[in-house]
Amino acid sequence: MRLKHPLSPSIDVNGARLWRRLGDLARHGATPDGGVHRLALSRSEIAARRQLVAWGLDAGLTVSSDPAGNLFLRLAGSQNDAEPVLTGSYLDSQPDGGRYSGSYGMLAALEALAAIAATGATPRRPIVAAAWMNGEGVRFRPGYLGSAAFTGQLPLSQVLETRDRNGARVADALEGWRAATPDIQRIALGFAVAAYLEVHLEQGPELEDRQRQIGVVSAMQGVRRYLVRVEGEAAHAGGMPRGRRRDALSAAVRIIAALETLYAAPDVTFTVGQLSVEPNAPSVVPHTATFSVDVRHGDTTVLARLGDAIRLVCESKKGPCSFSMLDVAATPSVAFHPHIQAACQNAAQRLNLSTLALVSQGGHDAQNFVGVCPSGILFIPCHRGISHSAAERIDADSALNGARVLAEVLWELSTK
Amino acid sequence: MRLKHPLSPSIDVNGARLWRRLGDLARHGATPDGGVHRLALSRSEIAARRQLVAWGLDAGLTVSSDPAGNLFLRLAGSQNDAEPVLTGSYLDSQPDGGRYSGSYGMLAALEALAAIAATGATPRRPIVAAAWMNGEGVRFRPGYLGSAAFTGQLPLSQVLETRDRNGARVADALEGWRAATPDIQRIALGFAVAAYLEVHLEQGPELEDRQRQIGVVSAMQGVRRYLVRVEGEAAHAGGMPRGRRRDALSAAVRIIAALETLYAAPDVTFTVGQLSVEPNAPSVVPHTATFSVDVRHGDTTVLARLGDAIRLVCESKKGPCSFSMLDVAATPSVAFHPHIQAACQNAAQRLNLSTLALVSQGGHDAQNFVGVCPSGILFIPCHRGISHSAAERIDADSALNGARVLAEVLWELSTK
Repeated sequence: MRLKHPLSPSIDVNGARLWRRLGDLARHGATPDGGVHRLALSRSEIAARRQLVAWGLDAGLTVSSDPAGNLFLRLAGSQNDAEPVLTGSYLDSQPDGGRYSGSYGMLAALEALAAIAATGATPRRPIVAAAWMNGEGVRFRPGYLGSAAFTGQLPLSQVLETRDRNGARVADALEGWRAATPDIQRIALGFAVAAYLEVHLEQGPELEDRQRQIGVVSAMQGVRRYLVRVEGEAAHAGGMPRGRRRDALSAAVRIIAALETLYAAPDVTFTVGQLSVEPNAPSVVPHTATFSVDVRHGDTTVLARLGDAIRLVCESKKGPCSFSMLDVAATPSVAFHPHIQAACQNAAQRLNLSTLALVSQGGHDAQNFVGVCPSGILFIPCHRGISHSAAERIDADSALNGARVLAEVLWELSTK
Repeated sequence: MRLKHPLSPSIDVNGARLWRRLGDLARHGATPDGGVHRLALSRSEIAARRQLVAWGLDAGLTVSSDPAGNLFLRLAGSQNDAEPVLTGSYLDSQPDGGRYSGSYGMLAALEALAAIAATGATPRRPIVAAAWMNGEGVRFRPGYLGSAAFTGQLPLSQVLETRDRNGARVADALEGWRAATPDIQRIALGFAVAAYLEVHLEQGPELEDRQRQIGVVSAMQGVRRYLVRVEGEAAHAGGMPRGRRRDALSAAVRIIAALETLYAAPDVTFTVGQLSVEPNAPSVVPHTATFSVDVRHGDTTVLARLGDAIRLVCESKKGPCSFSMLDVAATPSVAFHPHIQAACQNAAQRLNLSTLALVSQGGHDAQNFVGVCPSGILFIPCHRGISHSAAERIDADSALNGARVLAEVLWELSTK
């Protein structure tokens, strides 16, 4: 096997260092329960980025940042002006989220580049690891803002004007990032890319259930996300008879219960993750209830139908309340490039790692590259499928496996 | 009629001044939509109290405060050491609440005392108007804390150690109150009371529906209040299949929907006014949902049964989640003194005001006096029954009517 791939950088991936650095990175924004709370461009996320910069410089990589706040670690190629091969992830987290989402993909990318550098050979194309700005989409909406700006999916001006809940713009938050890194190179937004591949934990239970080591992602579920606002009228919880109330929470409960029934099919993914009530006092009938609806399906046509049904459900269950709906995000399902999938599959096989082809249920920055260049995603197993939680866990062997396959494929893509 | 009541202080109630002062008081903690947000012992509530002190001094009343932060305006009696007749209300509000709850009862009391003083006659017993600390029970739980300390329903030490959501104790908050009023008299906690009568807006629609001017409250519904905490497990909204989730909000929605059905009878009042979700992000399956349950019924035995059923509903609907219940408050239904009801009824009749005997659906400080002295409550109509809302409205004629009846009854009670 080694003959077909005379250089196998995966042997130089340092699993112990990767695992130790995952622990070190998790100190930034650490929560008492072992997770992290590290919102995009917050003090703790900027500290995590600075740590990444230090490790990148240590590995001999060139560090730069673009006007959208994306951070790049670059390994030079022998044809250094050829379009680079790109990998990447992000360093922000869900609120009280896990320590591996984003961070693992980022440190696996760093480790892969360091391993390739350690071979002493120079890749033909440069290889770049990007830390994308606002991958999770918690502080700023939507997620994948940095890669959307990079790939031109969103105009830079729109990204910079995006505001968080406190009214701070991305542009404002970026001042803190630039102030913290006066010494790194500033580059223009966007560059041509030969191929894109990222690694992430699965965030679902399939790999673990089927005891496979590497997931090769063939496609990504489409997502439609809404914010539904139900409005009624505040009233005294004792004085106002129930039949005359316009109770916004009662209406929201009826709507959510009906959506649960509507979306009961096993191929539909449906979540209400956010709900808030106003004025939110025990003895006041709520005048407003606002909740998120997240629907996912592998077929874009079916997904459109599922999303459209929400309005009908709200209409039929709102009772004496009124409602409005905000279309927050709509991402069609996408298929990843067969050549990238094949390269991942082959690399895993060479390393004697078992694989599974699967559909990603979550979104990733890779979705912004599908129309831009051959793209793909690798998964490693995550414990009990739990992610977006402090209880998120991966094991050190899986972390090593993912970084080794990534190193192999990045090298291979860099030779082409 | 006048013969039986040679002195009729209601003629001296100044409706224009009462109405103007309601507007002036509503500036403290004013919200953009015409309501007030004025939590107990906050800066704005202390400012409202100071305004009341100024008006009280202006009316020739003696001002004092007790260790529980209750504020008293006292009109001297000819037998000044006789047990006083007490009236009162509170100046704190619901979050973004209405401008009349509490404030109206307080200013009607002030106006009644001023009217009695204006007659030039001295009542036999002193008449005292109390502004009770934390009537609404929003900043500190439960409500009616000040009157509970005054009547000995709760030990003072417990009241002083009660903490708000930020961990501040009543004792801490009282320092601000004392600092703001260095010049008023400090009195010991609690004094014997001959009778207690307060006036409030109905907070329900019955008086308006039946076109009556004065409500004579015969009894108060009992209340049981709980906090239910449902715990599941956070997971990625895309990755984790629905059948394997432990979605705390899904379980809460099932429980609330089942309670809505269970409590459908027209004589049961049921409200979920508070609900919060953790971590509250659109793409994360909630690991925790916490909600309040407020159940009210006129019959204490039925109420006990209704409250006990909540645990069974949670048990049967929790699915893969777990739950815990906190018993926040239990107030039995109470009946008010027939002599007070008769005095109110007679006074309204003398003033040619139509009346309705009704049961209070909401709680009031008066409930703490039921075992202490003859007690009662008067209601005036409130527009569309809406209260605990910025949309809360009364009209100036109703405000005047309530203060006039109060003045008549307080005078009558003070002669006995």
